Amino acid sequence: MTKSVDLNADMGESFGPWNMGDDAALLDIVSSANVACGFHAGDPDVMAATMTRAMECNVGIGSHPGFADLQGFGRRKMQLSKDNLKNTVRYQLGASRGMAAALGGQVRHLKLHGALANMSSVDADMARACYEAALEVDPDIIIMVLAATEMEKVVRELGCNWAGEIFADRAYNDDATLVDRSKPGAVIHDPAVAGPRILQMVQEGAIITESGKRIATNIDTICLHGDTPTAVALAGAVRNSLTGGGIEIAQFSGRRG
Amino acid sequence: MTKSVDLNADMGESFGPWNMGDDAALLDIVSSANVACGFHAGDPDVMAATMTRAMECNVGIGSHPGFADLQGFGRRKMQLSKDNLKNTVRYQLGASRGMAAALGGQVRHLKLHGALANMSSVDADMARACYEAALEVDPDIIIMVLAATEMEKVVRELGCNWAGEIFADRAYNDDATLVDRSKPGAVIHDPAVAGPRILQMVQEGAIITESGKRIATNIDTICLHGDTPTAVALAGAVRNSLTGGGIEIAQFSGRRG
Amino acid sequence: MTKSVDLNADMGESFGPWNMGDDAALLDIVSSANVACGFHAGDPDVMAATMTRAMECNVGIGSHPGFADLQGFGRRKMQLSKDNLKNTVRYQLGASRGMAAALGGQVRHLKLHGALANMSSVDADMARACYEAALEVDPDIIIMVLAATEMEKVVRELGCNWAGEIFADRAYNDDATLVDRSKPGAVIHDPAVAGPRILQMVQEGAIITESGKRIATNIDTICLHGDTPTAVALAGAVRNSLTGGGIEIAQFSGRRG
Amino acid sequence: MTKSVDLNADMGESFGPWNMGDDAALLDIVSSANVACGFHAGDPDVMAATMTRAMECNVGIGSHPGFADLQGFGRRKMQLSKDNLKNTVRYQLGASRGMAAALGGQVRHLKLHGALANMSSVDADMARACYEAALEVDPDIIIMVLAATEMEKVVRELGCNWAGEIFADRAYNDDATLVDRSKPGAVIHDPAVAGPRILQMVQEGAIITESGKRIATNIDTICLHGDTPTAVALAGAVRNSLTGGGIEIAQFSGRRG
Repeated sequence: MTKSVDLNADMGESFGPWNMGDDAALLDIVSSANVACGFHAGDPDVMAATMTRAMECNVGIGSHPGFADLQGFGRRKMQLSKDNLKNTVRYQLGASRGMAAALGGQVRHLKLHGALANMSSVDADMARACYEAALEVDPDIIIMVLAATEMEKVVRELGCNWAGEIFADRAYNDDATLVDRSKPGAVIHDPAVAGPRILQMVQEGAIITESGKRIATNIDTICLHGDTPTAVALAGAVRNSLTGGGIEIAQFSGRRG
Repeated sequence: MTKSVDLNADMGESFGPWNMGDDAALLDIVSSANVACGFHAGDPDVMAATMTRAMECNVGIGSHPGFADLQGFGRRKMQLSKDNLKNTVRYQLGASRGMAAALGGQVRHLKLHGALANMSSVDADMARACYEAALEVDPDIIIMVLAATEMEKVVRELGCNWAGEIFADRAYNDDATLVDRSKPGAVIHDPAVAGPRILQMVQEGAIITESGKRIATNIDTICLHGDTPTAVALAGAVRNSLTGGGIEIAQFSGRRG
Repeated sequence: MTKSVDLNADMGESFGPWNMGDDAALLDIVSSANVACGFHAGDPDVMAATMTRAMECNVGIGSHPGFADLQGFGRRKMQLSKDNLKNTVRYQLGASRGMAAALGGQVRHLKLHGALANMSSVDADMARACYEAALEVDPDIIIMVLAATEMEKVVRELGCNWAGEIFADRAYNDDATLVDRSKPGAVIHDPAVAGPRILQMVQEGAIITESGKRIATNIDTICLHGDTPTAVALAGAVRNSLTGGGIEIAQFSGRRG
Repeated sequence: MTKSVDLNADMGESFGPWNMGDDAALLDIVSSANVACGFHAGDPDVMAATMTRAMECNVGIGSHPGFADLQGFGRRKMQLSKDNLKNTVRYQLGASRGMAAALGGQVRHLKLHGALANMSSVDADMARACYEAALEVDPDIIIMVLAATEMEKVVRELGCNWAGEIFADRAYNDDATLVDRSKPGAVIHDPAVAGPRILQMVQEGAIITESGKRIATNIDTICLHGDTPTAVALAGAVRNSLTGGGIEIAQFSGRRG
């Protein structure tokens, strides 16, 4: 059996007259697209255009909810009550699903954005509120989680469909957390480094930390970026490394428990 | 067979810290609720609370999309392209459906709000764009239209599920348009007048104009308001007149063609 | 010399179609109005109407900036960078001043709103950023601070014009902090209690804590509310107690250092 | 006496995480910057950064208010009441002035943006409402108007400080209106054409229409764009043509009546 892995990237992050990211280039590389829902980025027109292009490229559509903070791009921490969090996710996932349905498509997965994701990766209650909300809207949706974080713990408890994600361009500590951006080597910019490194992780089924330690985990999808030409180049290199190493690029099907 | 009619009202028009309308009082009177979707009023928390209460009262849930204009409450005319209109409706209906699904409920109908409705009632292209968008999201949704307007013409052309609506508190001209608000008698404030008048229209299956002319039409639902104590009193009087006259108050089931 | 004190209240917190508070009633009671600037409440029309009425009632106009969070009414904590904080205050104060100038009035003071105020009352750096920003726009503006908090420490350091504020309806701990709202007696609802209590504090020039301890402080203004009929009644009682006790109600003139 | 003319461009049209235009390149070319005020583009941080850079480049700062429509970039027509229009302009100009004052700068002029400008150029009542509002905030502000339109008529009536503007890249009809964008030649893309053409207009003190007709008018400033590399090249060519022809590039001082 050929081993396969999914490649995902955030998309549809333009808003009104403002463009962001090179979605067209990424759609040739990834198998899943996390489409912003209008709260931190994206608007109904951008969502429609992004989903349409994703479908043309046979790329899976995901809902990518975030905090209602356009100016801060959903990257500023906000303190929301549990109910408010849940309603915020229900609303955004619903909007994604409405748009996808209208276009003849389907929302396959959900991935939290920005500060909502960062906070949820270390706060199981917050992750649980968001994921429960999503599953109430669609019990079969695949929840994309940062591998080996509180997020993963929560989806295992919930017994839902999920997919584990690692970053193509970030170094890991020995406890599976990301090396702080302020430290040298925290972000991997060199495509020639990133490609083989990710191939090795996928082949071994483990996060390889900075120290060389292996943390066995489910690597179902790899997060890529398209906000700079360098990022797109790195994304392409990761894809090439993987396919060159005999790994098929294919949408995750979701795992349970 | 007992004749029946639906009573509808706009609800869920609070936003954040601001309350609007007496939804609790209206839920005892109406059979269908048009729930705002966050663009002109409502927010995810308000939507959730409103839909929950509607379900407890066995009141049908409708999606009530409007222009993205909180300050103007969706009452200011905006010129949107056809695509933008469609995406706006898809998004809002999707959000409504996501929220309803999460709460174990269902969005039965769609009604346009404010300037979006006013403009669509005289502009078939605009109505068509909005209704097509809604039907792309949910082919079975019941479109609520102002009876005997361009809206009705469009739903008949589309061959979709629809329901015809008249106003409980507005006088009609002989061409089925509303008497301009600036004219005396345009708005009916007296519950003792409004009740019997609506009963007669429902019994005759016709709009009765100011001059006494009958315009035969499908009166599937009657629009009530709850923004003032007087409005709630009028709403109650209309309900009492109808039930007193042997008309059952029940959710419309939608008609085709 | 007759002793005098200012009475202040938040106003202009309506937005678009939504009303909040009984500004008309409060304008007969207070001498200073904190007018929302459109970020957490208020819009240009509401600001214009509120300032116009304040001027008619000879009530001093203040700028009342808050976080850009309409849904949360500026009450949700947000983490902003120092520069973002400063620009947010500059913008809102500028907008207030533009509106006041257009109406022939003047912005006399600035008071932070909601979470922005709460956070700044315990975070001197945050208070300093906000106050520096305000003073850059208008070096003579009077900064209203919660008496005996980090806010007061900062205005003393800045050497700017300021006024110290206490709450009419909140109990104080022995360290001058407010008794937590969850504790019995934290909020004073009885006008018959609030009136004499505030009179005594003003006469003694000291916060009187729950235990009876006196904390000498500059009581330049007393914060009242108008969001409920009870709040308005309490506000009136406080005014009556003060004037009955020989205290004049008059706009603060600001103190230095 | 050396003849001089001002060059202006819209700037500060980024928002939150989204960039727009090449402000840095334009600041080397223009003498006046129209800085967005947060309603259709710009946010407090963008405003601060843009004004700071403009001051460093000795470029005059203008307030550039627009409709409150981020998604539509202020380009969608909105119907506002006269009071709402006035308050919208007062607020935005106030915000601009607050920001400029905080940075040690000054708002010299006001120019309407997008649909607000387009509508006002053919609707004297709308232009008058906007300009009156601006002059109430600052009686000395210079109002930038499209030369030979209703805007110019209004500033002449108001007797205020104003400056007349023509477009560097648009062809004119014989009645001084712009050639419709859908017609060939309506937009001038060739820097080698635009430069000499504008020089000639400035030298003759007249708009030169497509047919060659001269319409004498006050050309105080020329509108340039920076949204594409081509636009920046054209802007540079216009500047070079003017200076090569002995015309000095300098901020307008405003004319009366």
